[in-house]
Amino acid sequence: MNDTDPEPPARGFEKTEYEQRCTLIQKHMRDQEIDVLWLSTHADILYLTGFLTQFWQSPTRPWYLLLPRSGKPVAVIPSIGEACMQRTWVDDIRTWPSPDPFDDGVSLLVDAVRELAGPTPHIGVPMSSESYVRSTLQDQSAIRSALAGAHWVDATPCIRPVRHIKSASEISKLEFVCNVVSRAFASVPEIIQTGMTEAQAFRAFKVACLTQGADDCAYLVGAASANGYNDIISPPSDTVILEGNVLILDTGCTFDGYYADFNRNFAFTRLDDATRDAHQRVWDATEAGLECVRPGAPCSDVFHAMQRHLLNTDSGECETASVGRMGHGLGIELTETPSIAAFDDTRLQEGMVITLEPSISYASGKMMVHEENVVVTDSGYRLLSQRASRDMPIIN
Amino acid sequence: MNDTDPEPPARGFEKTEYEQRCTLIQKHMRDQEIDVLWLSTHADILYLTGFLTQFWQSPTRPWYLLLPRSGKPVAVIPSIGEACMQRTWVDDIRTWPSPDPFDDGVSLLVDAVRELAGPTPHIGVPMSSESYVRSTLQDQSAIRSALAGAHWVDATPCIRPVRHIKSASEISKLEFVCNVVSRAFASVPEIIQTGMTEAQAFRAFKVACLTQGADDCAYLVGAASANGYNDIISPPSDTVILEGNVLILDTGCTFDGYYADFNRNFAFTRLDDATRDAHQRVWDATEAGLECVRPGAPCSDVFHAMQRHLLNTDSGECETASVGRMGHGLGIELTETPSIAAFDDTRLQEGMVITLEPSISYASGKMMVHEENVVVTDSGYRLLSQRASRDMPIIN
Repeated sequence: MNDTDPEPPARGFEKTEYEQRCTLIQKHMRDQEIDVLWLSTHADILYLTGFLTQFWQSPTRPWYLLLPRSGKPVAVIPSIGEACMQRTWVDDIRTWPSPDPFDDGVSLLVDAVRELAGPTPHIGVPMSSESYVRSTLQDQSAIRSALAGAHWVDATPCIRPVRHIKSASEISKLEFVCNVVSRAFASVPEIIQTGMTEAQAFRAFKVACLTQGADDCAYLVGAASANGYNDIISPPSDTVILEGNVLILDTGCTFDGYYADFNRNFAFTRLDDATRDAHQRVWDATEAGLECVRPGAPCSDVFHAMQRHLLNTDSGECETASVGRMGHGLGIELTETPSIAAFDDTRLQEGMVITLEPSISYASGKMMVHEENVVVTDSGYRLLSQRASRDMPIIN
Repeated sequence: MNDTDPEPPARGFEKTEYEQRCTLIQKHMRDQEIDVLWLSTHADILYLTGFLTQFWQSPTRPWYLLLPRSGKPVAVIPSIGEACMQRTWVDDIRTWPSPDPFDDGVSLLVDAVRELAGPTPHIGVPMSSESYVRSTLQDQSAIRSALAGAHWVDATPCIRPVRHIKSASEISKLEFVCNVVSRAFASVPEIIQTGMTEAQAFRAFKVACLTQGADDCAYLVGAASANGYNDIISPPSDTVILEGNVLILDTGCTFDGYYADFNRNFAFTRLDDATRDAHQRVWDATEAGLECVRPGAPCSDVFHAMQRHLLNTDSGECETASVGRMGHGLGIELTETPSIAAFDDTRLQEGMVITLEPSISYASGKMMVHEENVVVTDSGYRLLSQRASRDMPIIN
């Protein structure tokens, strides 16, 4: 970072912020008659505790958090994480030396559930779309058997609406990391040239993101090929970038656990008309979507505004790409709910952070994808990413 | 990379390597009377197909692979991944536009299972330790209901022993990325100094790993503090590194999807006796473990050799840290089975790649951890990481 770059926001959150998150979720728990939440994933545990670690990349050990109907969460975790959890606001930390093939936290968890919620608890577990339980099927079965008197309830509706609304502190982290990525994209004409392989170009961009202030650039997908691309989730190859190629870089960078997620497209030396037009069309579709972003608007309205623009044949024939949606929530996961999709009528609220990501298929199967990150304000939206130019930049 | 650095190995694998992996797993399937495997995680799908993408970081969409008792695997995946999967050796790719809240691949999967294995199939799913199913509980329930005639069997014993043994091509990728990390660690005295924050030091090290040839350095944990550390899984803080501090960096870097996983410890300006001795003790314990590494030796023997050394009171009082084990398998996951642990009697075989990672608790709660990566050869082992020096390096 140079001297003119903004200072990063403070890491972590005040204890009151975690208290508010728990209180809001506990209100939903009472409405749903849930006695205790059983959480097992990186994002849910991070959200309620501040327990931030890349150790989740190791699939070996299970990590559990229980949230009773009132009071603070209780951590049931491997002892290797005790010191890290002790630095959070959680007081009640129960540990065991994991991995233990005979009892990998199962009896500790079962005892804690009984203690917090009695012998016939209503236990909330995330069960709906975009969730999973990070526990072996054998352990899940053992836990259900040991808690034979329990009722199991989908906890997704307790957690999701609370996580949807980002606090001012969360938004400051998201805005910072979006600025980092905007600066990294602005540097692309200086760091990526024809003659580099995709792998070299990706590496240069990752270094730029780190240098600009990202903690990590663990998500970078894309492709470079002649007259567009047809794959937006692949790692880089050893293919050399040539004149006439189009490069898409789509990145999820993090600061203090919060993601930026947007892409940019670059042409090298020259740009054919179809690709130039496709970029303008997804840019214009984003503009049409942005005009709908305000509190109270359903996500499906934003989707339809973008789709109407993309399918308007006055701008030439094309198809929308079948990637299921045109944007999503953003926060402590690379992609969160809600979906900017025809099926999602979730109403936007102040504090939601979303991506708008229209994509089309054009000119014999090539794709064009464009993405911006925005926060919903009291009257509309504020861009977190620096708006791309309507004309795809050409690197000479 | 400079001109003297080794060329990276070719990306991907020959089709015959995937055929061999499937054939070996299918032999276990026949032994266990399993008709079809249902796989859902990054590692299992990558192993059988070569489908490499960071898109797994998005929790939104489920991805499924079916392996029948003979023949090639069948992919049942979101259409956003079709182009990426088409570049693998898989021919039969069935897609749907995901996310779809009404049927997110469930009916497509159920139909494929019936087609491959009939109306009363024996379906193998990983159920044991270190596994999970990446599918919502609601979808798992719907799939089980739709396949009411099925028997569900733990598939862990089909897959695990095959993944344990790395091919020559896999070992060449692991060796390359271990060399990359060894060079990055060798550069630490030039890139990290007192006065930097932990966050700045971590960033400098990540840039070094990328510059040396890693595709990613998405796992970097550690800490710097006075006279040792007590937390080995945390992200960096804004704490400034001071004279007398000890810094541990533990990294999982990847090349073409394969991980290096080892740490190094560094003192700044000076090193107290207890910390110096602790480093020598875990280094010596590693040496004792290495002497046991050969085909036929149980993992538990390697563990006990290290533990005996650590607990030998001739070298001073200490306790082994309760992190559950002292090493693990390494490959397409940061940590794989087997465990170097008292409970794991898995016998080492030629081609296994493991970490040795003894750790102790010493001097009022501080920890010392040391790690090396090795491949088991026909007569013993070969180090993949460049062996650390017995004396902790002191950066002036």
